[in-house]
Amino acid sequence: MEFFMQKYISSPIWHPCTQHKDHEMLPPILIKSGKGVYLYDSEDRAYIDCISSWWVNLFGHSHPYINSKLQEQAQKLEHVILAGFSHTGIVQYSQRLLQVLNHQFDKCFYADNGSSAIEVALKMSFHKHLILGEKREKFLTLSNSYHGETLGALSVGDVGLYKDTYSPLLFQTLTTPTPYSEDLIPQALEALRGILQKEGANISAFILEPLLQCAGGMKIYSPLYIQEACRLCKDYGIDIIFDEIAVGFGRVGSLFAFEQCGVIPDFLCLSKGITAGYLPLSVVVTHNKIFEVFYDDYESQKAFLHSHSYTGNALAIACANATLDIFENENILEGNKLKREFILSHLQSLREFEIVENIRSLGMIFAFDLCNLPYKRAGFEFYKHALKEGLLLRPLGNTIYFMPPYIINEEEISLVFEGIKRVLTRL
Amino acid sequence: MEFFMQKYISSPIWHPCTQHKDHEMLPPILIKSGKGVYLYDSEDRAYIDCISSWWVNLFGHSHPYINSKLQEQAQKLEHVILAGFSHTGIVQYSQRLLQVLNHQFDKCFYADNGSSAIEVALKMSFHKHLILGEKREKFLTLSNSYHGETLGALSVGDVGLYKDTYSPLLFQTLTTPTPYSEDLIPQALEALRGILQKEGANISAFILEPLLQCAGGMKIYSPLYIQEACRLCKDYGIDIIFDEIAVGFGRVGSLFAFEQCGVIPDFLCLSKGITAGYLPLSVVVTHNKIFEVFYDDYESQKAFLHSHSYTGNALAIACANATLDIFENENILEGNKLKREFILSHLQSLREFEIVENIRSLGMIFAFDLCNLPYKRAGFEFYKHALKEGLLLRPLGNTIYFMPPYIINEEEISLVFEGIKRVLTRL
Repeated sequence: MEFFMQKYISSPIWHPCTQHKDHEMLPPILIKSGKGVYLYDSEDRAYIDCISSWWVNLFGHSHPYINSKLQEQAQKLEHVILAGFSHTGIVQYSQRLLQVLNHQFDKCFYADNGSSAIEVALKMSFHKHLILGEKREKFLTLSNSYHGETLGALSVGDVGLYKDTYSPLLFQTLTTPTPYSEDLIPQALEALRGILQKEGANISAFILEPLLQCAGGMKIYSPLYIQEACRLCKDYGIDIIFDEIAVGFGRVGSLFAFEQCGVIPDFLCLSKGITAGYLPLSVVVTHNKIFEVFYDDYESQKAFLHSHSYTGNALAIACANATLDIFENENILEGNKLKREFILSHLQSLREFEIVENIRSLGMIFAFDLCNLPYKRAGFEFYKHALKEGLLLRPLGNTIYFMPPYIINEEEISLVFEGIKRVLTRL
Repeated sequence: MEFFMQKYISSPIWHPCTQHKDHEMLPPILIKSGKGVYLYDSEDRAYIDCISSWWVNLFGHSHPYINSKLQEQAQKLEHVILAGFSHTGIVQYSQRLLQVLNHQFDKCFYADNGSSAIEVALKMSFHKHLILGEKREKFLTLSNSYHGETLGALSVGDVGLYKDTYSPLLFQTLTTPTPYSEDLIPQALEALRGILQKEGANISAFILEPLLQCAGGMKIYSPLYIQEACRLCKDYGIDIIFDEIAVGFGRVGSLFAFEQCGVIPDFLCLSKGITAGYLPLSVVVTHNKIFEVFYDDYESQKAFLHSHSYTGNALAIACANATLDIFENENILEGNKLKREFILSHLQSLREFEIVENIRSLGMIFAFDLCNLPYKRAGFEFYKHALKEGLLLRPLGNTIYFMPPYIINEEEISLVFEGIKRVLTRL
């Protein structure tokens, strides 16, 4: 044991979201290459990336077309400052993004990761109200929500595991219950009405992950609630922020989740799938009516002075353009409908296991919970066994989810479920 | 005027750190390619990138060697989740980084941009103290400091222009004066002693940009102050965070600024030059004695549960490895010493202009202030004229700075200063 501890303390990498003591018995797996849905380790063992490497990969690893576009861009321009300057790729991408958003938004503000996009949306909403003469110092969030790890993003999240430690550093957020079944909607709306009556004028924005809370345990909730809750908030002049960082780019069946909600948010945050899993990039999409509030003489000090050095990076944008190309050229959303049906038939067959409950799905997201098991950490036990089956199925607590790259084929899907069944049998 | 406003409101991009009304008369310059120190716009006009595209570019645009390494990596693996998994490139890079840091650090925690690295360092310091039984809810920063734009990073900054708007969302930070000349050191230390006597036990970390405050106006201050201030803080058990996001990777002459300070910080934040201007990447480097505080059974809930989806991205790491290759193979730091001398001789010749004051430099950073000019925004006037000379010299207020890619040659340096002189004559 002492040997292992020495060994992993001597590793040069402090891994994200990791208790390193877990690596005493299960060291980090060293990946040397990837192709399609497969990752290959240093001993040539193959793993199917069943979670798209934290929900980012859409079209498989080391994709020939995206590689070619990345290389083409590197030959031209790798990066240029985006203040005072622009570049061909980002103008084209922004126009295309607004087009696939059905021209319901007007402006793209870029950043590097999901957390930073959330920070941009929070700051923009707060700042906009301030310019308009309203000091709205609170934000409204849903119970069990997750919006990232920087301190602003963490403030509007509600997963205690990530947030509680840092509470003295976080700003004040109001939390309203998420209704996970339709019969809970009336009381959830009632709770929301209560908060709004008391605090509505102090709330800058209502932030939510539309349709599905991901890090909160792959929990689905109804667009009916979202529609009505957003309508109530708008009555109080509260902005709506949709965090589609995890669910955007086809994951919920439609290209974006807001299309299924009947709500056009004031701010739409996108990241993860935006580059199909290639490079860090995020964007906050918003409206001219908000942009114009900040538009004035420089001396007015109304400018939105947020920036990151690599904002709008040309290489990341090239991957984002390639991602839209693939969506268009390969009719991905239609193909996913068929794949979804095939996956569902396998997923439903897990009902036979007594240790499986709450089987659920939405678009290309599939999940179930482990129950009736004697382990302290059943999810972690499942994960370890799945690795031996060549499956990367990192759990969320005791929730096991399958969020594969969209290019997974029927043979690979069958392999995944055969592996899952062997693990469930063994547990 | 109305036409222009319509035109730039109809642009799909909301640019970072920009008052868009400035674009009525000076639209964003559309760059289609870059090579070496040059950027080329859509009408084939060339601009020398005198500020390394916000201080990120080290070896010029579209660099053949970095391109080749990027392509090589894309063929193997573009990205893999860094939790539970690792990849060949990042293990190699982390070992190399610790080596060029003279083995004075042990662990690398990765993120995507400078702000996120600052957030990681703040959270780690706060969390570490909490695990050790100390609730230290305040941070200490220097006057006029800048550490990024996410709300945590903004909280520990002190540039009112960026920060004041959002003050209700920021946590409490104590600010101590920065001594910009050696005779001010005694009173700056006295002020610091006063704060520490009163608040020392409540302060988690002291954060500073060693040697030079960049966004605060390229202001240089003494390592003598830094050494003594850090020593005082350590007496109170306060962590030291060095933000070398802008000054790291050779910008101040040595590879890192801490080498000139006689201080090994508890947390060292790096970004910008880490990929030579190619891709967003950041890292917080720290020590085993801190890592071990978090090392325990999973159930203890001591793990540092911070993550970003693209943490440790393989493509960005490939550029970071290529960057270290170039530092090693081309003896960059030695070459910069000669270039610095050549630039200094040009810089000193600006003394003849009455509108130039406070000429200063450190390593490959050169700056002066504009004075005695009738414009409300002298820096912006300079910027506009410089663009006509084919020079990208985005100012900080009325401070003009020259922070070129290290590959700039004598001919190009001469061109830059000829252009600067023509602008100074014209203003």
